[in-house]
Amino acid sequence: MIVEANSVRFDSLALDSGATLAPVDVAYETYGSLNAAKSNAILVLHAFSGDAHAAGISHETGKQGWWDNMIGPGKAFDTNHYFVICSNVLGGCRGTTGPSSINPATGCPYAMSFPVITISDMVRLQKMLIDWFGIPRLLAVTGGSMGGMQALEWAVAFPDRVVAAIPVATTTRHSAQQIAFNEVGRQAIMADPDWNEGNYYGKQPPGRGLSVARMIGHITYMSDDSMREKFGRRLRGKEAFGFGFDVDFEVESYLRYRGSQFVNRFDANSYLYITKAMDYFDLTNGQGSLASALARVKARFLVISFSSDWLYPTYQSQEIVRALRARNCDVGYVELESNYGHDSFLVDVGEQTELVRGFLANTFEKAA
Amino acid sequence: MIVEANSVRFDSLALDSGATLAPVDVAYETYGSLNAAKSNAILVLHAFSGDAHAAGISHETGKQGWWDNMIGPGKAFDTNHYFVICSNVLGGCRGTTGPSSINPATGCPYAMSFPVITISDMVRLQKMLIDWFGIPRLLAVTGGSMGGMQALEWAVAFPDRVVAAIPVATTTRHSAQQIAFNEVGRQAIMADPDWNEGNYYGKQPPGRGLSVARMIGHITYMSDDSMREKFGRRLRGKEAFGFGFDVDFEVESYLRYRGSQFVNRFDANSYLYITKAMDYFDLTNGQGSLASALARVKARFLVISFSSDWLYPTYQSQEIVRALRARNCDVGYVELESNYGHDSFLVDVGEQTELVRGFLANTFEKAA
Repeated sequence: MIVEANSVRFDSLALDSGATLAPVDVAYETYGSLNAAKSNAILVLHAFSGDAHAAGISHETGKQGWWDNMIGPGKAFDTNHYFVICSNVLGGCRGTTGPSSINPATGCPYAMSFPVITISDMVRLQKMLIDWFGIPRLLAVTGGSMGGMQALEWAVAFPDRVVAAIPVATTTRHSAQQIAFNEVGRQAIMADPDWNEGNYYGKQPPGRGLSVARMIGHITYMSDDSMREKFGRRLRGKEAFGFGFDVDFEVESYLRYRGSQFVNRFDANSYLYITKAMDYFDLTNGQGSLASALARVKARFLVISFSSDWLYPTYQSQEIVRALRARNCDVGYVELESNYGHDSFLVDVGEQTELVRGFLANTFEKAA
Repeated sequence: MIVEANSVRFDSLALDSGATLAPVDVAYETYGSLNAAKSNAILVLHAFSGDAHAAGISHETGKQGWWDNMIGPGKAFDTNHYFVICSNVLGGCRGTTGPSSINPATGCPYAMSFPVITISDMVRLQKMLIDWFGIPRLLAVTGGSMGGMQALEWAVAFPDRVVAAIPVATTTRHSAQQIAFNEVGRQAIMADPDWNEGNYYGKQPPGRGLSVARMIGHITYMSDDSMREKFGRRLRGKEAFGFGFDVDFEVESYLRYRGSQFVNRFDANSYLYITKAMDYFDLTNGQGSLASALARVKARFLVISFSSDWLYPTYQSQEIVRALRARNCDVGYVELESNYGHDSFLVDVGEQTELVRGFLANTFEKAA
């Protein structure tokens, strides 16, 4: 399945901060076909470092989409039945307007003059895209990690536009530990002199800082067990320690490689803006209980967490489920057994596929 | 209790790498009095960023020792009964020879020409200090985290010189995840241009990189729960988000402060060398089972872990206990309930005090 990236431009977007962005581009891809009733659309929401290329083989890059094992003919999000949309988030660097975009007022990249954005801003821009498609109601919104935050925000902000929500490995708000990991990544970037207060476009980007930030991320995405299975204490290309500061262990080699690769595909300022949006996110807006924040929700829910995910632990999904049940919402919940840590929702999709397939079929039938 | 730092110089130390250091200084402190039989000495071994100042108030700095709640009259390591010694580790930056020391061959700091060191090297230097004191057998060796690794190494390397060992919150070898966290810290330091291949003495040290490394460390030392209790999502000195990249959350402020403070007291090259020594450490030397590595051990053991310690999880202490039991060693083991994560051994010392007190009294009685 070769897929093409598309883009649509909107005149402006009013942000939670009070600022207005004008214009705003949104990069998106679609898979499958929208039916005549426009009742089979599913919006897939990407995680922090994802993009609009969720499935198939990219026409431009030849790369597989980040959730290709979940989206396609006969897969969990079955494109023989459903029309799947995925767009790059606001603040991103893969086609949607973000800090690396040109500010039309200056002719230069926004850099750190880009306004601070929120998960709610991202979702309002996605809503404009769905309106543009003329889709009255999404059959489902779904995503893992930051994608799950957006799915929750969709259900709360636009209760009449969402039939079902599938938030995966996510939370209604970051804990101190989650904020802390993001903050260390930000500090690593801002400590790199090449960051230059964000003004590095056309120059050397802050690759060393961004690479360190990504290395931290990768540790938190895996579990202690999955790192042991994948690397253990195996040495890299030698029999014994080199007694030096070159790579000794395979895990070091892996992290350095993943860190350096990330620099080629991600913008450091987008890292700052998007992690801040995640940290700011609080479905209760800091007011009242989670149950009261969910008062207007009409969607049915399938909530999924993973046993070895210590970055977005099961207790955070259970909080969502308890609050939804307190509002008498239709909610199913499963904690899936997996060793892959937070990455489980991307890589260990066997049981997840069965769950999602059944839930969607049931939702479509009820909605019809 | 005002305490004075002391130092002793040895002619040379042969290292595992094949290199020889000459001369070698060791900074140490002592608390309590050595009895006539020299049978009441306890060697306390510090963790990664600790130093010889384990107890009392430093004459030079006015600061309390890092385990002052455990060492002193009437405390767990009761200085009315025992003679407690603590020395700064080889490779350190607080009085013992390390990369910031002057290389007599050049008249300049060693920097990255300092030889790679191991936990075993650290312990052999401590053994020279104990010989210098004329102490035939230590009543106990003890320490948490990297200090626990040294305690284990003492019991294996010098079985006739150790009556008892109390390894706390430690492991016989780092997991891939533990290596990974250390590696990210090293990469953060080496990514700082001020690191300058280690040649920053007399110039600007790599404070930004070292600070980021320390921030990562602090996250791993605390637990998800203890960070929630200490910081939650509380904002720093304001009512609402600033919508910017200044400090928003208290946890950010705390981490930045702890990171910047660390730069004033720790040498970045020592960070590199000591974390490498921890990663290299493997009580089995990569050969045979843990039980066979413990074949010569004569000490009795008290092994302690903490329920919320996810950096040195309980399963690693249980591995030690199983292997000791397989050798028919005298070993007691307790997992203490505490919310403080890896920091528990430093801050939550109530039950730990009772355990250590009883174990030491019993050990002293049996040894007499």
